Amino acid sequence: MAKDEIEAVYRVRTEPSGLGERVEALLLEQTVELRRAAIRSPDVLEHFVGRVIATEEVGTGDFRVRLAQPAEAAANDPAQLLNVLFGNCSLQPDVELEDVRLPQALARTLGGPRFGAAGLRRLTGVRGRALTASVLKPMGLTVDGAAALCRTLALAGLDVIKDDHGLADHPNCRFVERARACLAATADAAGTTGRRATYVPNLIGSPATVLRQAREAKELGVGAVMVSPMLLGLPFLNELARGLGLPVLAHPAFGGAQRIAPVALLGKLFPLFGADAVIYPNAGGRFSYGPEVCLGIARALRAPDSATAPALPVPAGGIRIENVAEALEAYGADTMLLLGGSLLEAPNAGTLLLRGRQFVEAVHAFPYPS
Amino acid sequence: MAKDEIEAVYRVRTEPSGLGERVEALLLEQTVELRRAAIRSPDVLEHFVGRVIATEEVGTGDFRVRLAQPAEAAANDPAQLLNVLFGNCSLQPDVELEDVRLPQALARTLGGPRFGAAGLRRLTGVRGRALTASVLKPMGLTVDGAAALCRTLALAGLDVIKDDHGLADHPNCRFVERARACLAATADAAGTTGRRATYVPNLIGSPATVLRQAREAKELGVGAVMVSPMLLGLPFLNELARGLGLPVLAHPAFGGAQRIAPVALLGKLFPLFGADAVIYPNAGGRFSYGPEVCLGIARALRAPDSATAPALPVPAGGIRIENVAEALEAYGADTMLLLGGSLLEAPNAGTLLLRGRQFVEAVHAFPYPS
Repeated sequence: MAKDEIEAVYRVRTEPSGLGERVEALLLEQTVELRRAAIRSPDVLEHFVGRVIATEEVGTGDFRVRLAQPAEAAANDPAQLLNVLFGNCSLQPDVELEDVRLPQALARTLGGPRFGAAGLRRLTGVRGRALTASVLKPMGLTVDGAAALCRTLALAGLDVIKDDHGLADHPNCRFVERARACLAATADAAGTTGRRATYVPNLIGSPATVLRQAREAKELGVGAVMVSPMLLGLPFLNELARGLGLPVLAHPAFGGAQRIAPVALLGKLFPLFGADAVIYPNAGGRFSYGPEVCLGIARALRAPDSATAPALPVPAGGIRIENVAEALEAYGADTMLLLGGSLLEAPNAGTLLLRGRQFVEAVHAFPYPS
Repeated sequence: MAKDEIEAVYRVRTEPSGLGERVEALLLEQTVELRRAAIRSPDVLEHFVGRVIATEEVGTGDFRVRLAQPAEAAANDPAQLLNVLFGNCSLQPDVELEDVRLPQALARTLGGPRFGAAGLRRLTGVRGRALTASVLKPMGLTVDGAAALCRTLALAGLDVIKDDHGLADHPNCRFVERARACLAATADAAGTTGRRATYVPNLIGSPATVLRQAREAKELGVGAVMVSPMLLGLPFLNELARGLGLPVLAHPAFGGAQRIAPVALLGKLFPLFGADAVIYPNAGGRFSYGPEVCLGIARALRAPDSATAPALPVPAGGIRIENVAEALEAYGADTMLLLGGSLLEAPNAGTLLLRGRQFVEAVHAFPYPS
């Protein structure tokens, strides 16, 4: 790979006899969007038409196609990069984006995680073990309800307590009031536990709304925020991470429908665009990723292709107290385990506190290989 | 439907014996994200848990599921609305969003097309026939190249000449310089034709970049802009349309991969969020929608469920001069026909001018039913 090329790997379903033509069409679709013969400028041909690195048959009529596109096509812009990777060809159902590799200069322009796994450890003060996290829900809870739940989870010793991605600026639970009350709850609980949990509010809305929420959150002293990049737009994640000065947890909502392989989308594009930690549905829960995909996401987050900082994997969904050890066997210490429903379905605050403590205990006591 | 409910229609693949359980899980997933038994607040149960309107088997193990979700869940926010419609369940491959109907109050909050089909007719001065449009491409062309192409297309009598969605702020073709030169080209051509073509620049980038481009475009006197809402984030389309004061053409790039039916995404959500005209891949081109889907998109744009303005359908791709009449038979006058490659693959400017004139002539001469 020359330094100034973007590598995009697609899975393409086509008749083997039509492969050459299909690949040529895909190559051109993503930049010039004209047939090669119709391009009359030698400069365009040289600078904006990519090349086929390799094609490989992985099954009958199922091909892995590695393309190199000129980095110049992405114009150093996050939205235009997505356009080159999967703009028009997203409309062609025979194509899936499987992998992405950016030249270092473009990755540096995007910036990647500003805090990453290391920054989240500094923020929470957790070393040598996995981080524990839970969720404030259901949507519809009041400010007092959110704060009470947050206090109980903080008393249980959780490291991170985040809003559910469905907590918006609802009239019965305003963003600022919820954030203020939850921060007070973690401060209050710290008086008992001696250690303050990190409360992470969910920012959601159009960009102006989210930027206002980010300002409000910072003024209140929030230590990190969560967004759903596919709802808000991936380019906006990049803009937010650039200016925010706080770690960003990314939630996958609205993202599973993309015909982009989960490892490429959640494991590579989310952190490249600035996510410091990435929540993803763990195997065995009510979503569809298998164990290999989940470990693939974790590996990609921890060891980026580019010279960007490692991000923290946050498997969520399908993890219960009973299988925390199993999850830690699989993921090791360099992980934030997120338990939502399996804690919150406790019948009362006393049981929730107990379950929270069991979760925390299991994560603290696990014999991490050094 | 009560006034304060959002209707979301899904296609769900499941064993018939498990339908009830699957539908209950889907209903709860999109708001409270907890099992019903775990919700202890009567207020949450009353205000944030939706209901099943109907289920219908449309094939073996293939069900149409109509859910009503409380409008309150969407918190009058465009991102949160998407979250309620297709946030977490986008991660479940057995679910597809097929249709959407919003209560009038929520549709009014989103605002829909600010100019719509009527505004685009006012802008272009076209009455009683379809509008003609073409594209400036390939990516990589220079400012002078773009302006020359724009001038030729304007001389040919096209109504609308838009940037390709892949024209970003490339160093060899800066946004402002391109827009200024193309506007000058349409003014110049108007000296010959007596009628000025509408040049529509492509805004692309993170929100701050796009907002800057929008300001620059307005200062230059641009009459309408194009964006790719799925690249930029649908909530940002809503914010942009709210403040822009110009018609917005929406391009489908990055959007085809969503497991949302094209009629729902392009025909309903794009205009609800503010698109005045929606470009979509026409049947017979290099994309995958069939004639029924294309006509369904057009119908949805023209006759919105909500009390929002009708938007203009812009079929594109696969239309050649030879089948303009066929396209007009199908779409009628209330359409903007977009020819890209089939014009631009002309071997030289003279042929392009000729082909452009043939296209314009065919659209002008077509006997529209009155």
